[in-house]
Amino acid sequence: MSQLLAKTIAAIKPLDKTAMEKAATRQDILTKPQGALGRLEEISIRLAGIQGKAIPVIKTKAVITMAGDHGVVAEKVGNYPQEVTPQMVLNFVRGGAAINVIARQIGARVVVVNMGVAGDLPADIRVVDKRVARGTGNIARGPAMTEAQAIQSIEAGIEVVNAEIDKGLDIVGTGDMGIGNTTPSAAICAVMSGQSVDKVTGRGTGLSDEQLQHKIKVIEKAIAVNKPDAKNGIDVLSKIGGFEIGGIAGVILGAAARGVPVVVDGFISGAGALIAEALAPQAREYMFLGHLSVEPGHRIMADKLGLKPIVTLDLRLGEGTGAAFGIFIAETSARILAEMATFGEAGVSEKAE
Amino acid sequence: MSQLLAKTIAAIKPLDKTAMEKAATRQDILTKPQGALGRLEEISIRLAGIQGKAIPVIKTKAVITMAGDHGVVAEKVGNYPQEVTPQMVLNFVRGGAAINVIARQIGARVVVVNMGVAGDLPADIRVVDKRVARGTGNIARGPAMTEAQAIQSIEAGIEVVNAEIDKGLDIVGTGDMGIGNTTPSAAICAVMSGQSVDKVTGRGTGLSDEQLQHKIKVIEKAIAVNKPDAKNGIDVLSKIGGFEIGGIAGVILGAAARGVPVVVDGFISGAGALIAEALAPQAREYMFLGHLSVEPGHRIMADKLGLKPIVTLDLRLGEGTGAAFGIFIAETSARILAEMATFGEAGVSEKAE
Repeated sequence: MSQLLAKTIAAIKPLDKTAMEKAATRQDILTKPQGALGRLEEISIRLAGIQGKAIPVIKTKAVITMAGDHGVVAEKVGNYPQEVTPQMVLNFVRGGAAINVIARQIGARVVVVNMGVAGDLPADIRVVDKRVARGTGNIARGPAMTEAQAIQSIEAGIEVVNAEIDKGLDIVGTGDMGIGNTTPSAAICAVMSGQSVDKVTGRGTGLSDEQLQHKIKVIEKAIAVNKPDAKNGIDVLSKIGGFEIGGIAGVILGAAARGVPVVVDGFISGAGALIAEALAPQAREYMFLGHLSVEPGHRIMADKLGLKPIVTLDLRLGEGTGAAFGIFIAETSARILAEMATFGEAGVSEKAE
Repeated sequence: MSQLLAKTIAAIKPLDKTAMEKAATRQDILTKPQGALGRLEEISIRLAGIQGKAIPVIKTKAVITMAGDHGVVAEKVGNYPQEVTPQMVLNFVRGGAAINVIARQIGARVVVVNMGVAGDLPADIRVVDKRVARGTGNIARGPAMTEAQAIQSIEAGIEVVNAEIDKGLDIVGTGDMGIGNTTPSAAICAVMSGQSVDKVTGRGTGLSDEQLQHKIKVIEKAIAVNKPDAKNGIDVLSKIGGFEIGGIAGVILGAAARGVPVVVDGFISGAGALIAEALAPQAREYMFLGHLSVEPGHRIMADKLGLKPIVTLDLRLGEGTGAAFGIFIAETSARILAEMATFGEAGVSEKAE
């Protein structure tokens, strides 16, 4: 394992229990019945543990949207042409995509990363260039990438999030763009959860019944051809993954190592989270699940990660759109802990015993 | 029926189908797979129909939090003393309650209304004074209020929302404060849904098993003593309701009559929504359900209203806290429709057929 990755994993510490206890104690004296803010209380307490502050602070926010292409599109697993990946990267840069609108709404910046787009991108656009290669290999016929490329993609994610944290970042969301990327994500989900491929495979951008059956067969073939070792995150990523999936795993590990909460988006980000968790199980404590995707495998990923989605809006877009809503609610939970009056301050009577 | 109420109900029109069709058509040419934004698309289309604009605009926002007291607290249905109602009104006015923090976060104003607090409030505070009486009667022994007071409470809600719409208001959320008010709300839920009292009654601010059984008996007694007519909203409100519940019903009817979307909060607001819907079934089309409360009867209310909650954060606080999150997501959905690029504008290839 390369040095940056090893150092990052080693830097992930358990949460700060003292800060969490202080946050929980404060929640109980705020002017509301104890526990009445439900998941907002739970989220604020974990944020305290992650940041190591009794009252967590969330001001600067970013969504890191990673783009990559997939050789498996040669098997006709989707309906959109591969040229859409760079076209959407341009759309992100110009601010016209869903993630741009939602990020403006929540006051977050969007960081767009080229992890391995197949087509050309103009040189002068605001995209972080971390391209590992021009798309992965076709996983139905061989590995997605070499082991060295798998490590390179994860380390690129670590570098990107480190640079953003250096600029100031209190919470980060993951996002993805890549035509065909529900296919490697479903493969990763099946292998790492032990569930059958048909249970974890969905319609992506909108497949017919027949197309869905074909996609399932392609994924089964990819697993049979590559025989990934479910316990080895690097092996799974290199054999059936994607460059943006590796990049997302890196963002998660890098954020955890620096004590920054990370909100995981949908199905593709979930695949990145499974890789990150296989490499560093303690990284899970730094993750929130922004939303529950329509993709059927996402619930299986959530269970495997032990994470409960923050919202369920029947999204199936990726880009970080679901993560952005999670960031907003996490920020609100921290603000409640900071700004609500206590019973004492407000002169409100407490519950009779 | 008094003139303002009758006029308001008569002014509630069906949604603008042309605006909805235009919004749906636009959703389908935005740079994302059709339907990939799930509930955000559905919400934006209904907002278009409510506002009568192909691209709905949500800028000015308010949460109207209505406070009232309940004579049924004499039956010991809760753990907090009645003095907490005016104490929390002061907390709202000073900005220290949960709804204040969340409203600041979403950029909404909070309008606090005294619909019928039992205790005294200082004269010089920013509270809209619509007090019908100093708390309702004890519903376990007789009616909550007279029929005239029921109409007065609904019309007060209409007046409050009309005044806010006159100041500029694109979307409104409902909220409540009133010690003991899960008891009348559960009674209303049971009567209007036809479900048994034990299925719709919850622990409110945190009752023990024994206290919950007592609360169920009190509610059963209230229904037996008063015999409300489930189909008559005024009869139900006057016999087993509350002043803030009537006020919330009025806010909903008033908003619908003026073509303003209204986001209904939790269990107490849901009781107000049931009253509003009994008086004007078409008002339902103007309602969104901000969240699903922990109170077990809330899901039954949602089903009866045919509304799907926007978020589920295990809240059980009221005040409008769940409505505020719904407002934020509705605003985001409208902004997506307005600001996302189309396939044509962005030069992104469409799905292959």
